[in-house]
Amino acid sequence: MTYRTGSAFWVRAAVGGALVLAASGVTSAADVVRHPLPGGNTFPIARAVEVPAGKTIIFHSGTTPAPLDPKAEPGSAAYWGDTKTQALSTFVRIKESLDEMKLGFGNVVAMTVYLVGDPAKGGRMDFEGFMAAYTQYFGTKEQPNLPARSTVQVAGLVAPGMLVEIEVQLAK
Amino acid sequence: MTYRTGSAFWVRAAVGGALVLAASGVTSAADVVRHPLPGGNTFPIARAVEVPAGKTIIFHSGTTPAPLDPKAEPGSAAYWGDTKTQALSTFVRIKESLDEMKLGFGNVVAMTVYLVGDPAKGGRMDFEGFMAAYTQYFGTKEQPNLPARSTVQVAGLVAPGMLVEIEVQLAK
Amino acid sequence: MTYRTGSAFWVRAAVGGALVLAASGVTSAADVVRHPLPGGNTFPIARAVEVPAGKTIIFHSGTTPAPLDPKAEPGSAAYWGDTKTQALSTFVRIKESLDEMKLGFGNVVAMTVYLVGDPAKGGRMDFEGFMAAYTQYFGTKEQPNLPARSTVQVAGLVAPGMLVEIEVQLAK
Repeated sequence: MTYRTGSAFWVRAAVGGALVLAASGVTSAADVVRHPLPGGNTFPIARAVEVPAGKTIIFHSGTTPAPLDPKAEPGSAAYWGDTKTQALSTFVRIKESLDEMKLGFGNVVAMTVYLVGDPAKGGRMDFEGFMAAYTQYFGTKEQPNLPARSTVQVAGLVAPGMLVEIEVQLAK
Repeated sequence: MTYRTGSAFWVRAAVGGALVLAASGVTSAADVVRHPLPGGNTFPIARAVEVPAGKTIIFHSGTTPAPLDPKAEPGSAAYWGDTKTQALSTFVRIKESLDEMKLGFGNVVAMTVYLVGDPAKGGRMDFEGFMAAYTQYFGTKEQPNLPARSTVQVAGLVAPGMLVEIEVQLAK
Repeated sequence: MTYRTGSAFWVRAAVGGALVLAASGVTSAADVVRHPLPGGNTFPIARAVEVPAGKTIIFHSGTTPAPLDPKAEPGSAAYWGDTKTQALSTFVRIKESLDEMKLGFGNVVAMTVYLVGDPAKGGRMDFEGFMAAYTQYFGTKEQPNLPARSTVQVAGLVAPGMLVEIEVQLAK
């Protein structure tokens, strides 16, 4: 991940159109560039992320949650938990995986979020529940790097009751 | 990447109906290579697109349409418009975003199209409606570059009534 | 990208059950790195795949099966076959496409699998049927390279009755 040293970056990323690269002594010829959403939109995703030549791109498998209560009836809401719970579990698992590869959420350049309709939300995906988990890891003071992202509601995931699968691509 | 010297490639790229790479004085050592569909299939997508080392890859967030009539009932067909209308709006928004980054549809190397079943089409995705919009921007005389593409019908998108989300990856 | 010099990497790559990179005289300075699933999990996908700078990345369009029996009623199970049959047909078509580009399944670094719920499986995607086809081409003695992968159940594909679409990204 790019080493960012200063305020210049923050100002620019916040502006909605400005200078995304820190003027720091980064080693690589060119850094990842994260374009903010247009119009000052503060929703915590990047409009687009540029990965320049010279970077390694990492394709990560889709990750799903661990059961919340493995003793509950498999496939039940008690077994898996709600969307927020499942998303938090999924991010924890991704983080563990990235740690082992000496990567972090700051390296994520793109994310695809697959949500299943939540019966407790009238069958619609619980987008707010997902966001409540996502914003603990992306767009924080400690980890401000935002990925390009797509979020769609799918018809199902590999296990019944599973409501969240998250796929990421990274750069270093 | 395969080293292609000239006419053999051009002939081949032209089979799908389009001269794929501009014969301009492009600076990079190797250019993006767009493989046409096999068997002379003229459907306007590439079978595959090769992005050689030395290129910047841009991951763009999924883009959704603007409301057709923001005064209509939110989520209604009047509010969003049909699939073709939504796809046109989405492409306009992507174009605006690319313009700001000094990119264009000709830079798109891959596209994922997420369509929601259209109640007016018996609940099936309106693939023809989407294509009617897509072909205004891809495979035209002015913009012959075709992306690799996948199109799937999902169960839903972030807002009720939204029928189209389009994600693109680009290279420059 | 991490510089890997030798046996440590091979031991690690072998944990997932497969020696991932051939010990051949590959020319590029850095090779694709395939990280096995954690915890000795032998499920035949990679946890993540690193594509270092210097590689060409190939984006391939989503591929769907050929009809099993083109004389059967279009859209019927007899016309398309079950999930395993459709997945096998899809892999054969991808292989033909890769052959023409002088690529093979060993070049696949990422895969997205879109399955439609199978009426014969109570409307759930037939994940086992898909895996029965996948494992003929990935994680075999002849082709041990495993991709990062996501598998989701979608609401539909371009033609009624079609149950499988597979998208791959490759590196060379």
